[in-house]
Amino acid sequence: MTTFRTLDQANEAIAQKIIDAQPRLVDVVPARTVIAALEGKLILHAGPPIAFADMPEPVQGAAIGAALFEGWARDEAEARRVCEEEVQFAPNHHYQAVGAMGGILTGSLPVFVVENATEGNRAYTTMHEGEGKVLRFGVYDEAVGEHLRWMRDVLGVGLSRAVKLFPDGGLPINPILAQAVAMGDDFHVRINAASSLMFRDLAPKLARVGLPQEALEEVLDFLSGNVNFFLTLGMAAGKAVLDAAATIQDGSVVTCMTRNGREFAIRVSGLGDRWFTGPEEPLETLYFPGFSDADACPDTGDSAIVEAYGFGGLVAVAAPAVQQLVGTGGGGFADALATSEEQAEIVVTSNPNMPIPNWDFRGVPVGIDIRKVVETGIAPLITTAVMHKKAGIGQVGVGKVRAAMSCFTAALEALAEAHGTATQA
Amino acid sequence: MTTFRTLDQANEAIAQKIIDAQPRLVDVVPARTVIAALEGKLILHAGPPIAFADMPEPVQGAAIGAALFEGWARDEAEARRVCEEEVQFAPNHHYQAVGAMGGILTGSLPVFVVENATEGNRAYTTMHEGEGKVLRFGVYDEAVGEHLRWMRDVLGVGLSRAVKLFPDGGLPINPILAQAVAMGDDFHVRINAASSLMFRDLAPKLARVGLPQEALEEVLDFLSGNVNFFLTLGMAAGKAVLDAAATIQDGSVVTCMTRNGREFAIRVSGLGDRWFTGPEEPLETLYFPGFSDADACPDTGDSAIVEAYGFGGLVAVAAPAVQQLVGTGGGGFADALATSEEQAEIVVTSNPNMPIPNWDFRGVPVGIDIRKVVETGIAPLITTAVMHKKAGIGQVGVGKVRAAMSCFTAALEALAEAHGTATQA
Repeated sequence: MTTFRTLDQANEAIAQKIIDAQPRLVDVVPARTVIAALEGKLILHAGPPIAFADMPEPVQGAAIGAALFEGWARDEAEARRVCEEEVQFAPNHHYQAVGAMGGILTGSLPVFVVENATEGNRAYTTMHEGEGKVLRFGVYDEAVGEHLRWMRDVLGVGLSRAVKLFPDGGLPINPILAQAVAMGDDFHVRINAASSLMFRDLAPKLARVGLPQEALEEVLDFLSGNVNFFLTLGMAAGKAVLDAAATIQDGSVVTCMTRNGREFAIRVSGLGDRWFTGPEEPLETLYFPGFSDADACPDTGDSAIVEAYGFGGLVAVAAPAVQQLVGTGGGGFADALATSEEQAEIVVTSNPNMPIPNWDFRGVPVGIDIRKVVETGIAPLITTAVMHKKAGIGQVGVGKVRAAMSCFTAALEALAEAHGTATQA
Repeated sequence: MTTFRTLDQANEAIAQKIIDAQPRLVDVVPARTVIAALEGKLILHAGPPIAFADMPEPVQGAAIGAALFEGWARDEAEARRVCEEEVQFAPNHHYQAVGAMGGILTGSLPVFVVENATEGNRAYTTMHEGEGKVLRFGVYDEAVGEHLRWMRDVLGVGLSRAVKLFPDGGLPINPILAQAVAMGDDFHVRINAASSLMFRDLAPKLARVGLPQEALEEVLDFLSGNVNFFLTLGMAAGKAVLDAAATIQDGSVVTCMTRNGREFAIRVSGLGDRWFTGPEEPLETLYFPGFSDADACPDTGDSAIVEAYGFGGLVAVAAPAVQQLVGTGGGGFADALATSEEQAEIVVTSNPNMPIPNWDFRGVPVGIDIRKVVETGIAPLITTAVMHKKAGIGQVGVGKVRAAMSCFTAALEALAEAHGTATQA
């Protein structure tokens, strides 16, 4: 292991690993084939560790649905009992995985396999199911099960074959990120461009993998109609890239941000796998018609990996369309610019390979430094989908939320303890 | 015919027609099936009327290529003689058509058929051939001919069937324009988002029109790889929309801007089909490596219909990535914003259905008013591809150019003559 004289040197090395990373979508497979522990009665979830009893209702609903999908129970009541008594729960992050909303993952669900070609490590995530009645919003019935089986046995099989037709054996993700950040995406609540570019890359391959005609039509219809399909792929790319960066076990860079509906949590490069948790900050939400704060589930999901990766709220300037949804102070371009200017104060550097035209070609922010967060008092800003607090209703709005400052202060104290007092930025 | 009390009232009615228009891609067919005059030895070209002898070399080259493609000659020398002695030439605009670069169109070439559903009128344009050795850059050989036949007999047939599968019998163009103007496109030199969205709409339909496997793969590969494919579709939409607007034969709105490599030309709503021409302004070009002003063909093409439609240089603020190519004064976001703010001074109104997030959701400019152009001294700004002055070399850079002010002053004088003196804005 390389040792660094200063935290700054370590942070620069970490940032360089993030900039140099080459994430690629290399396969789609049932999760148990790549996460061996999922052969057992294990359910992975978003955020730091949490007991089933403490999970928000839609996350419990998704876990119950997953238990039914796995055939661990015949009905909802039995599935609930199984979740309460028999199932082991663990964070996705403990198994190189991430998941949107509740992030529920079991062995039979299909996952994207993202490989970071520069380091060879992999990350996993479920595929975006579309909107409406879907498992990630805590609903499960025969139709949801059928859709999940179709995603595994038709869509997943097609994509698995298709990505292997790319020159390097996988769909390169950097070109999609680099183009889409110049096309209005923040990759967290606006993913239209990336989803379109991904579809443009994949469709010609999908047409040549021997799918039956009906399957090909279904797959193209689904991908064409799902403007958010890239969301979890971006998350998994972030996970693969930040896991590789975290192999430098030094420095003060955030390698993960996540939340389980009760707590916000981070991990930091110099502090290994330790979780630093804090109470969630209140969401500021623009609700869809008919919904209000009274309906909102607390902020949930591993999707804040997008911000740890440098996108989402940090690239607000790239996605001014989002300001209509999550902006304050008028919601115009100036607010988006001010948000990115503020967030740039807490990062190590910027990525010259991903210039943002709206920002005079300044690069995407790289590496949130917990020292800078604490010293400036600027918490990372996260844009996010807000789901209903009851299972089965789904998304009720789009919001923004600040990372919990107490995570950063606690992590900085731990870092000071580990390094002596030389932790000032 | 409705009569209006003032030019302003007429202009507002024209602007409303532009805003209300519903252009759709309804077919792809050989040009002669929709433009009967192309049964004869007629070649259509970009810009106002021009004789073959006066055309820039690449435009002559494209005409010679088209003559060979039509089988009017066996070799280049004979084709040149045919063009000089036998062929009739006329502007695309005289036949509800538009064309990129030289804009050469003959009967056997396939064309997009765009219908404006609100008025039922149609417009035509050749499809974008891709880059490299292509007819629009004035090159013709066996490979170019083969590609054009493939575009007509495979791509064109596939698209013709595919667009008929949309609910209203055509691919709606407004949703693509409205989304892509929020995704960094100006639709003239940056068309990546629109081309991607168009592909996302078309691919699932193309998969179900019964193309042989090899043809389907070729078509998807071609469309997936051509980031500029939407260019001419946007031009034809502009033509269909502005032709419908021009049925109000009153007011002072520009209904067409175009250039033939010698002259810039406009038409104006209150002045019928009359051309107002002037000398071309010099291009400001960012050249690809190895090229300079000495290589540039004068500005050519009907593509300035994009600016007459309200896009291109007018929406610079929406496409700051283009500033790297065509910007002045640093090429940053502020320049893009200043350009759109300036151009907004010469239009009638803006389109509330196409808000630009980068511009605090201000709408796309609608209706260039020649009175405002003359009074402010602000000429419309056109972003454009610049081609080599010799046939067969192709694009050498990306540039910007001002519309020729003398066209506007001459048109305003004609309008004053027609209307008395009440022509002040």
